[in-house]
Order: sequence, then structure tokens, then C-alpha cells
Amino acid sequence: MSEPFDAVDVIRAKRDREELSGEQIDWVIDAYTRGVVAEEQMSALAMAIFLNGMGRAEIARWTDAMIRSGERMDFSALSRPTSDKHSTGGVGDKITLPLAPLVAVFGVAVPQLSGRGLGHTGGTLDKLEAIPGWRAALSNEEVLAQLEDVGAVICAAGSGLAPADKKLYALRDTTSTVESIPLIASSIMSKKIAEGTGSLVLDVKVGSGAFMKDLDRARQLAETMVALGTDAGVRTVALLTDMSTPLGLTVGNALEVRESVEVLAGGGPSDVVELTVALAREMLAGAGRDDVDPEAALKDGRAMDVWRRMIAAQDGDPDAPLPVAEHTEDVVAQTDGVLTSLDAYDVGVASWRLGAGRARKEDPVQAVAGIEIHAKPGERVRAGQKLLTLHTATPERFARAKEALAGAVTVEPDGGVRDRSIVLGRVTA
Amino acid sequence: MSEPFDAVDVIRAKRDREELSGEQIDWVIDAYTRGVVAEEQMSALAMAIFLNGMGRAEIARWTDAMIRSGERMDFSALSRPTSDKHSTGGVGDKITLPLAPLVAVFGVAVPQLSGRGLGHTGGTLDKLEAIPGWRAALSNEEVLAQLEDVGAVICAAGSGLAPADKKLYALRDTTSTVESIPLIASSIMSKKIAEGTGSLVLDVKVGSGAFMKDLDRARQLAETMVALGTDAGVRTVALLTDMSTPLGLTVGNALEVRESVEVLAGGGPSDVVELTVALAREMLAGAGRDDVDPEAALKDGRAMDVWRRMIAAQDGDPDAPLPVAEHTEDVVAQTDGVLTSLDAYDVGVASWRLGAGRARKEDPVQAVAGIEIHAKPGERVRAGQKLLTLHTATPERFARAKEALAGAVTVEPDGGVRDRSIVLGRVTA
Repeated sequence: MSEPFDAVDVIRAKRDREELSGEQIDWVIDAYTRGVVAEEQMSALAMAIFLNGMGRAEIARWTDAMIRSGERMDFSALSRPTSDKHSTGGVGDKITLPLAPLVAVFGVAVPQLSGRGLGHTGGTLDKLEAIPGWRAALSNEEVLAQLEDVGAVICAAGSGLAPADKKLYALRDTTSTVESIPLIASSIMSKKIAEGTGSLVLDVKVGSGAFMKDLDRARQLAETMVALGTDAGVRTVALLTDMSTPLGLTVGNALEVRESVEVLAGGGPSDVVELTVALAREMLAGAGRDDVDPEAALKDGRAMDVWRRMIAAQDGDPDAPLPVAEHTEDVVAQTDGVLTSLDAYDVGVASWRLGAGRARKEDPVQAVAGIEIHAKPGERVRAGQKLLTLHTATPERFARAKEALAGAVTVEPDGGVRDRSIVLGRVTA
Repeated sequence: MSEPFDAVDVIRAKRDREELSGEQIDWVIDAYTRGVVAEEQMSALAMAIFLNGMGRAEIARWTDAMIRSGERMDFSALSRPTSDKHSTGGVGDKITLPLAPLVAVFGVAVPQLSGRGLGHTGGTLDKLEAIPGWRAALSNEEVLAQLEDVGAVICAAGSGLAPADKKLYALRDTTSTVESIPLIASSIMSKKIAEGTGSLVLDVKVGSGAFMKDLDRARQLAETMVALGTDAGVRTVALLTDMSTPLGLTVGNALEVRESVEVLAGGGPSDVVELTVALAREMLAGAGRDDVDPEAALKDGRAMDVWRRMIAAQDGDPDAPLPVAEHTEDVVAQTDGVLTSLDAYDVGVASWRLGAGRARKEDPVQAVAGIEIHAKPGERVRAGQKLLTLHTATPERFARAKEALAGAVTVEPDGGVRDRSIVLGRVTA
């Protein structure tokens, strides 16, 4: 009993809407990491935080305590400035793949320490693992060497970064305490600050396929994270971007790699190109390079060149053919009209059920599973026209995937063609 | 995955202030009992219930599901009606000890299935175990035989009654989810209904030493429990009683047995006698015996007679001397004046720290530890006069016990002598 606090008192304080002291927060995070605060105690505290909130000072201290639960990376030895991007997660969000090499073209180092997917949004590492030979696990030394040499690295975050967050993240997932702004903001920012980047761009998704379903809540999350980054000395900017419909024309691991390569080859769907370029401009500006033209580097092959070196540096073969699903089924339009909505969440769940995602973190994913999109909201379609093609290695999955899609598509005879920008807002310090 | 629900969805529903369906409640209690719903999931749900509440139908279903998690007792074979009492717990609350034999005098069977103390309130079984030889554990057959023969039994509740409640109760204790009306009411009433009593009197404590600090909340708890009992076919009445100061003049296990025996001998402190008689009248009325005079049965030795047979039936020696502490220290008044308050909670914590209670359920308790009270609120005292005597077998505990008492006593030079009834209200169906 040499502990300075009792978890019961800390939980009670938050339950009763009191502000937690800095010492209470430091202790509860540390004691949870050590196993002195039990899982059921932390889950009660997380629910109390979910329902009663935390103030700005509490969130900052909570984030800092999670950073101090583990190691910090140090990129100060690099000859280049560093810039990092984080997306709160969306359906078809493959932006990291073209973005990291694109920014590296201009001498800015991009350390993308990423995760695997859980639930209806895919994980960046799962996508890249569709490339034959590519490996996600790098040592800290390999990360530094690749940043110096290639300029961009996308790899698994080491287990030494913010271990308290790792434990808490898994707990929140099983206890319905995920969609809390203080908990989301501190989780993301503890990892990003511990990674030691000089500047950071946040892609905060808004809409059915995102954690944040409406713009107000998304803005609040963005403001919280920008404040945390700024207070920690990281130049931080956030874009609020649309996630009411999937990004691009593919959802699923190998399918999204293919689309990313199209973008790197100067083509690809316009929304993916627009968002990649918008985020690249923010990352470059954060690193002091607002004088360059990322769009040109997609067109002229310089970004593709870095991509190929980045994949090869991690034992991937950029020329190897990507795996293709043995089984496909189409979803077609039932009537003539304008496609007025294609719901991101439904498509994400369908892709997950086809095998692209995992229900538990130890589950494998299929590289080939996913969904091709043939028409996007605003386009005119005819009855019988193909809207989606579902891909899987295991055809018994089609039925449940189609169930998820039951209300995903809306075609209206006289629907309007709305032109909607992908970037809905911008938050700065 | 043959489970009909997912705990994550049930937690989310309550988190989002939705009403849980009967099927969700049945499942979550059953699955928690089976270990399918994890402790950290139930604690998140308990916190969501704590903060967002439950409606009357939800509480009734929750209670019923906890009853159905285990066995029910059946007293229908008895030749007498049964009446039971439950106290929400207070400091110095030894009322069960004189009350059970007193009611049995009049041919009403009293099955008091009791618990041990945790925290600052003592447990009835801990008190009785101060009597040499007495044993708390009886089989269901022994309980029935003793009820038929002696008319009263105070013993440990079998582990078969409401096992879901047992698990949840332990969890709530470590996760700051105790003081919730839906959770308290369903916990108490599931056990009492499963015990199969025909009528029930609830002693709902109000004040610093009780769960419920104010009369409004206590009344709300009482109303919730009376409704649950009534709906389950148990004649249920509640008294709201004062717990701002300890009951009687003793707190602690052997000390409270001694005081109970004084009451059974026709003496004892007036508040203990008043409450014992008030509760006896309610229990007797609930069993159809509102024609008798319990006060007389304390005076003329009939209650003492049943007490002696009840103790002896469980191998206790009613004539054996009770153990006495080797170490005592006094607390004296600092000034002349009227003792205007003697805080129940502080005295409870001090007694607990002296060794009368336990911090964890596997800890032992001292039979001898506790506090004797020499003056009660409303009495005039002089500087230097003894107010309390602390008892313990382990004198190193005096220091922390005295810390707990630092603000327990208020003496005011011109304090008024308030006459306050112990019974503050009554709640019926």
C-alpha cells in the first residue's frame, strides 16, 4: 500500500464531475500500465470520462502521462525536417500510401508509424501487406536509416510507444467507450507526440463512415488535438474531410494498393487525388516547404519513384502483380435515376464481412477481399447498371456482406447532382 | 457466437440513455454469471447505469434476472408466516440481533440471511461471531428446522442465492459504482425475494453514516425497493431512519453483542430500543400480527428466551463471557458545551481502523475492536469528560483511528438540545 492514490477515489471523482488533479492522472495511467489499476477499474473510469468529459488541462495531462508510459522517438539526428499525418479512419482511406512518398519528394522526411484495422475501417499495414514480400516490422534504427535514405517509411508502430494507450485502446473497444473526444484525442496525440515528429497534419473524418458523424463534433475533436499538439511543441493543423461516402473507387487491401499506384502514376479518382494533394500541401507547409507543387510530382513520376524505393526498402516487390479475388459478385442499380448516396459505413461493414477486416485483433485479413465502386454519389445511373463489385476468397461471405449493403445505395429519379468538396474545414492553432 | 446479443451494444445503449429491453437485461445478467460478459464490460455498464439511470421496468427486470441466476428458497412448508428485515447499513446498527428473536416470540418466523461487513459499516455475522462457538454457516435444511423449532435464524446467505448479484456487488465495490439507486435496490431486493419471505421490512438509513446522505434520495431508494417487493408478491414496507450519528452507545462486534443483550434484558439505549420496537411492529403487521405488544416481550424476558435458544441452536454459548480488548484509549471533550454532533461516518471509519471491519473481503476482523460512546448529540458535556473509548487488540491502530475522528465531534457552548426521532418517514406500496 505505498500507492499515493486509490483507483476507487479517482473513479468516484470523475463520476461526480470533479476535475482530476495532475497527480491523480499521472498515477492512474502509470498504475494502469503496471497492472495496479485493474481493467474493470479503468473501464469504469473510461465510461465516467465518456459521460462527464475532461477539461483541456486534464486532457493535456492525460496525454502527457500516456507519452511518459513508454519511450519517445528522436528524429533530431536526421538531416531533413519531419512531417507526419494521421487520419481518424475512414472507408477506402488509402491516402497514406501515395501521400508519404509524395511529400518525401521535396526533402521532407515522413515517418508513418501505422496500425492495423479493427472494425469497419481498414488498416494501412493490412493494405501494404497485400504487396508480396513487404514487411511492416522495422527496428528504430531501420526507420531512421530509411528516412535518411528514401525519405518516407510506413511501418508498424513499435510496442514501446505509449504502452498505456495500447492497453486502454483495446479496453475501450470492448467496453463501448471509443467515441469520446478526450479519449480519442489523447490516444492519437500521445502516439504522434511520442513519435517525435516536427509537424503534424490531422485528417479528421466526418460522416457515416467516421467516428464523428457530424461536423460540430469533428471540429471539436480537431480543435482538441491541434491544441494538444501545439502545447507539446508540434506544429499541428487539421483538415475536416468528408467520410459520408467511401474515398475513391476501391475499398479493401489489394484493391486500395492498386488505386494508390494509379494515383502515383498521375491518374486515379479525383477525390483521392484532391485529398492527397491537400494533405501534402499542409505537410509541406508544416515543414517549411510551402514553395513547391505536389500535384506536379504526381504527374511527372517523382512520387512514384519514391514509392518504389520505399516499398523495396521494406522487401516488397513494387512490380509484383497484386493478388486478385477468385470470387466476385455485382450489385446493380434497381431503377434509373441519380445515385444520391452510397453510405460509407455500410460499404465499410460489407468489405469487412467479405474478409478485408478483422473482428478480433488476432484474426487474419484477406488481401483480395473488398469492394470496387463503379458509380459515386451525384452520378446518373440506369436500372441494371453495375454499381459495386464485391471481391472475396470465401464466397460464403457474400450473403452477409449484401445484408450490410441493404440500405447503402439510394437512387432517386430526380435526384440533384451535388458537387461536394472533400475538404469541409481547416483547424489551426 | 451463438449469443443473441453483444455486450458492446448493450453498454452502448445504456451509455446513450436508451432503455434496455427485457431480453437485453436477461442476457447480460446471465452472460455475466457465465463469464461471457467480462468484468470490465460489466463495470462500464454499471457506470453507465450509475450516471444515466434505469427506469422502473428496467430495474424490475434486472432484479428478476438476478433472482433467476440462482436458486430460490421456499418457506411454504413452515407452519408459521415469515417476515424478514433488511437494513441498508449503518454504524452501530445491531438491530437485527434483538429484533429477530423479538418477532419470533409471536409465532412469526424470521429468516435473517445476512452478510459480513465491508468498509465502515459492520456486518451482522461478524458481530455474532464474537460469541464463543457460534457458527454462521447453515444448510438450507438446518435453516428450515431452526425456523420451525426456534422461530428465528440469523446465518450466512447461501452462495446459491442470486450469484449474479454476488459477482456484481464485489465489482461495484472496486469501481465506484455502489451508490446508485437502481443498482442498490436490485441488489437488495433480488436477495430478499430469492429468500422467499412472505413479508419484508426495509430499514433505509439516511445520513453521513449511510449510503444515502439525504432524505430525498433515501425516500427514492425506499420507494424503488417497496415497488420491487410489491410487484414480486412480497408485502413490503420501508422505514426511513436516522444515521447521522451511530445507533446506540457501541460500535464494534463484541461491544454491539453486549448492547443487544442489554436490550433483550429490557434495558439498553433508548434509540436502539425505539428502532427495534418500531421495526418489530412493522414485521409483525406484515405477518398479520398487529395485535401484539413487542415492547412487553423485551421487558418480560420472552425475547431473551428466544435469543438464547437461537444462539445455542447454532452452537453458540449465550452464557460465555464476550471477549474484551486489551487496549483502550479515551477521547475527551475539549470544551464545555452541548455535544451537537457525533458523526456516524467518522465513528464508523475509526472503528473499522481499530480492527472491527475489513478492507478486503478475505481479511479477518477483531471481535474486541470498536468504540464505546459515552455521550450522544444533545447532551451537555464538560471539558475533559470522556466522550469515546476506543478498543483494539492492536494498539498501533489508535493513531489512524483518531485521525478519522478529527472532525467527528462538535461541542458548541450554546448549542441547542434537539430532540430527534430515529424514524424519519415510512414508505408503503
